[in-house]
Amino acid sequence: MSGTNWGRWGDADERGTLNLVTPEAVLAATQVCRTGKVYSLALPIQREGVPIFDYRGAPQRLSLTSNTDNDRYEPFGAPEGLGSNEDVLVLASHSITHMDALSHVFAEGKMYNDFGAEEYTTAKGAQHLDVAQTASFAGRGVLLDLPRHQGVDWLEPGQVIDRAQLEACRDAQGVELRSGDILLVRTGWLDFFATGDSGYPQPGLGKDAVSFVDDHDVAVVGADNAAIECIPFDDNEFLGVHIELLVKRGVTLLEHLFLSELAADGCHEFLLAVGGLKVTGAAGSPINPIAIG
Amino acid sequence: MSGTNWGRWGDADERGTLNLVTPEAVLAATQVCRTGKVYSLALPIQREGVPIFDYRGAPQRLSLTSNTDNDRYEPFGAPEGLGSNEDVLVLASHSITHMDALSHVFAEGKMYNDFGAEEYTTAKGAQHLDVAQTASFAGRGVLLDLPRHQGVDWLEPGQVIDRAQLEACRDAQGVELRSGDILLVRTGWLDFFATGDSGYPQPGLGKDAVSFVDDHDVAVVGADNAAIECIPFDDNEFLGVHIELLVKRGVTLLEHLFLSELAADGCHEFLLAVGGLKVTGAAGSPINPIAIG
Amino acid sequence: MSGTNWGRWGDADERGTLNLVTPEAVLAATQVCRTGKVYSLALPIQREGVPIFDYRGAPQRLSLTSNTDNDRYEPFGAPEGLGSNEDVLVLASHSITHMDALSHVFAEGKMYNDFGAEEYTTAKGAQHLDVAQTASFAGRGVLLDLPRHQGVDWLEPGQVIDRAQLEACRDAQGVELRSGDILLVRTGWLDFFATGDSGYPQPGLGKDAVSFVDDHDVAVVGADNAAIECIPFDDNEFLGVHIELLVKRGVTLLEHLFLSELAADGCHEFLLAVGGLKVTGAAGSPINPIAIG
Amino acid sequence: MSGTNWGRWGDADERGTLNLVTPEAVLAATQVCRTGKVYSLALPIQREGVPIFDYRGAPQRLSLTSNTDNDRYEPFGAPEGLGSNEDVLVLASHSITHMDALSHVFAEGKMYNDFGAEEYTTAKGAQHLDVAQTASFAGRGVLLDLPRHQGVDWLEPGQVIDRAQLEACRDAQGVELRSGDILLVRTGWLDFFATGDSGYPQPGLGKDAVSFVDDHDVAVVGADNAAIECIPFDDNEFLGVHIELLVKRGVTLLEHLFLSELAADGCHEFLLAVGGLKVTGAAGSPINPIAIG
Repeated sequence: MSGTNWGRWGDADERGTLNLVTPEAVLAATQVCRTGKVYSLALPIQREGVPIFDYRGAPQRLSLTSNTDNDRYEPFGAPEGLGSNEDVLVLASHSITHMDALSHVFAEGKMYNDFGAEEYTTAKGAQHLDVAQTASFAGRGVLLDLPRHQGVDWLEPGQVIDRAQLEACRDAQGVELRSGDILLVRTGWLDFFATGDSGYPQPGLGKDAVSFVDDHDVAVVGADNAAIECIPFDDNEFLGVHIELLVKRGVTLLEHLFLSELAADGCHEFLLAVGGLKVTGAAGSPINPIAIG
Repeated sequence: MSGTNWGRWGDADERGTLNLVTPEAVLAATQVCRTGKVYSLALPIQREGVPIFDYRGAPQRLSLTSNTDNDRYEPFGAPEGLGSNEDVLVLASHSITHMDALSHVFAEGKMYNDFGAEEYTTAKGAQHLDVAQTASFAGRGVLLDLPRHQGVDWLEPGQVIDRAQLEACRDAQGVELRSGDILLVRTGWLDFFATGDSGYPQPGLGKDAVSFVDDHDVAVVGADNAAIECIPFDDNEFLGVHIELLVKRGVTLLEHLFLSELAADGCHEFLLAVGGLKVTGAAGSPINPIAIG
Repeated sequence: MSGTNWGRWGDADERGTLNLVTPEAVLAATQVCRTGKVYSLALPIQREGVPIFDYRGAPQRLSLTSNTDNDRYEPFGAPEGLGSNEDVLVLASHSITHMDALSHVFAEGKMYNDFGAEEYTTAKGAQHLDVAQTASFAGRGVLLDLPRHQGVDWLEPGQVIDRAQLEACRDAQGVELRSGDILLVRTGWLDFFATGDSGYPQPGLGKDAVSFVDDHDVAVVGADNAAIECIPFDDNEFLGVHIELLVKRGVTLLEHLFLSELAADGCHEFLLAVGGLKVTGAAGSPINPIAIG
Repeated sequence: MSGTNWGRWGDADERGTLNLVTPEAVLAATQVCRTGKVYSLALPIQREGVPIFDYRGAPQRLSLTSNTDNDRYEPFGAPEGLGSNEDVLVLASHSITHMDALSHVFAEGKMYNDFGAEEYTTAKGAQHLDVAQTASFAGRGVLLDLPRHQGVDWLEPGQVIDRAQLEACRDAQGVELRSGDILLVRTGWLDFFATGDSGYPQPGLGKDAVSFVDDHDVAVVGADNAAIECIPFDDNEFLGVHIELLVKRGVTLLEHLFLSELAADGCHEFLLAVGGLKVTGAAGSPINPIAIG
């Protein structure tokens, strides 16, 4: 494929643009904090009130042990009223706020860095590029708050975000982007979703926006919508922006991020730490990114 | 209960000692980084080679979509060879590397801050003190590497760690503990587990060590063993240290942390960010804490 | 409780009216078959097109092994193209076509035969009256086809079926009911559901119909609706008919039965065999009852 | 493939030898009952004490609702002490006592009747030959009790059962096999498993035994071992008997049947009804076959 990062960090690379986040970049990122306020960029994981695709199933929390299980604790000498609560979770790797592993999308039968699509098997999942490779990172996060810049509550459903819009927002905010940064794009879609009136179309990045990512050597892209890119897809190309960013460039993607609190505080620059579940073989993970303002 | 933090931050408090982690403390924590190296403190989530309790079940990653599902992508105009991989996860909230929510343990029919044990119900889980309350935090982490200090590979199975051992290690390392810090105690148990020869007993904190936590106003305690505390329990008191720390004081606990890499680097002071899954009603969550050295 | 079968088969009984299905009754039931046609009374288990309550979750079939897993089979000497497909199922015990165990409902803190409601615990489920006790039975099935008798496609949503309607239908069909029989009541509700226009209310048994069950010493009651009884509940008494039949009398209940094929054939008498999943501790099970006409 | 039933019942056939079970055969089967005693041929579904393969996971019953959920029932006007218990089940389609769908095994890239192995996809499972096609049947069951005939408690682990052994047992028992019968072979393996001393090898059918199935036009084969066939596989051919019976002939297989009670009663001829879960797309199902003696 053309215009790619395949081979850029060697034939065995499974981290993609996370390679751009050097220790020096991380150390520099720790210096951008101004308030010490901690932001959680995850929506709650629950069955209602959050965006869920039917085919993924609504997440389930089921009770495993509780205060009804005295007979479990008694053999340990526990008096009545003493015990522990535990749960079992059943949830899609890509449910609600989540990260895409580099094995998430394949095109022309290939995943990032020329790994074959057949390397994701039923029993083992991704034998290369699984989420364990990219689940753990930190760096400088930059929020581009498009609705605020454009003077709207949220971008229109289906609105295609192009390079010019990103540049204008960046300039208006007076924030610069550096190599290895984590770019978070607020479309306002989650606020629209919260009204209960949203449907299938969503605003998001178009293919033209990819060059913005290239120009700044961005390591990670996140957004508050379902798929980073606009839906319906730009030019009706199925997963077109995923192909450009994830498959060709190895850019880790973060979706359904809760960005409203950062936006409300006007916090556009922050340290961001992401610790996804290191599930061997998985093509993604629910996440709770932590930003420090 | 005596010696508790119940009411210390109000009757409605559901965060416990995380209240000690002020924005000022977080901001100060960002200043302790020296190298910018990012550490993941989580073990992989998989069915073998990691510590799993039978009753919790081994975690399962199951395939939801893959490259065999062309018929799913065709309606979107996808050519052959284009598509996405996704998974479904089934895992215990307290499996492998995880955090305990403040609803995890109850004693004398009460959870932290006088919330009744009956507030954890089958259908809803924890209606107070669920993991969503405490899943998101960052602060200054301090590692006390007991095996290195004591000149052993790992502490003895069943070894009770007391206040004196913690103080001696702290002093030998020349690191101080501050209010709101995250205390990580390395026992070496995971290294022993990796040999395949480990059994039921584990080294861990004894009840005497609780005063060490009190003295330093520690916000969070983590360790590389299964339960922070030693097993068999100190004085044969079932979950005795959980009762002291979690129930009485509202101290968030992190278990089965992977601390070997921090230890190998001699990195005893770092910024730590934890973003657990914000599962409404859950009494814990698998985590992947991110440390920045 | 009054009007109950508690103690009728001893204080330890966990089978309720299934005790009425004697070997003699079963042997007699084998003699009612006329055609040898085999009927499945279960709806398919799938995520769409069948009645599912949100809180139970739609059932999930997930792939465990498939033809993508050559690496699993090769160690056994398998050539390419040889292997096996397997799945993992996640489904509610009471999803779609299912049976209620006698532990399914409790009233005044008691389950059938004076077992305390507290015997269903989080970790173990039902320690008495679990579905394993009642999952396996066979007997003479009798279908009362109310819509056909009343000359409608289906009974009205919310329609309360009383004793008189059951008697009239029985007499019109010319079928008698015997001690130990399995009574299947067709309301037509599944046909209404199939139109896509159904809502919350359903036709079903009212409290007056309970005496019909008593008079005939019926062992099991099944229907094509969600809960045997009408919804909204008769007299607005929550689970009123469940309390009468399941809790007081120990009558096993079968719900969401697919009765249309039996009805279309005018097959009102048949041998019925039910083999529910014998899940230790469960309060119910999905079933696929087999009728032989 | 040679020696197959492919095309025998048309190119679209998805039922295989179940086509041999005509209504006449079923009706005749109802006439073999002598006692009316009902036998469940399923082991309990639980996490311990039953044969479980690690990769399938131990089955989990998790609590969904219980007597702790008063707040769920109150909106319906339920008084305290009234409510319902429900569960969620997580279990492998092929766990413990189960049936293989005709899509379970593929060889040379083909499933039964020339359906391609690629028809089992990750998202949808088996698009042909799923378990819904074969889950529901009844017929005449014949038990060949090999350990009793051979005068042992159980056949030796790894023992290969050939045609001659089956014939000798059949003749000694004085039972004949008819077209469309369900052949159940007792090896005694579950009794050996119950001692806790069993390992990997199991007694079971060898390839020579296939001709016995052919000669009698058997519709279904069941056994008390894990895979009908012996383990290690006869001639070291991976799934060799599955290929002959399931793939080539379309013979439905039932595994881990509990046959001890039938054997103890000397009940060698009976009506058998099987109602597996009709899970759309699944390659198998847990079952609880009901035999009537």
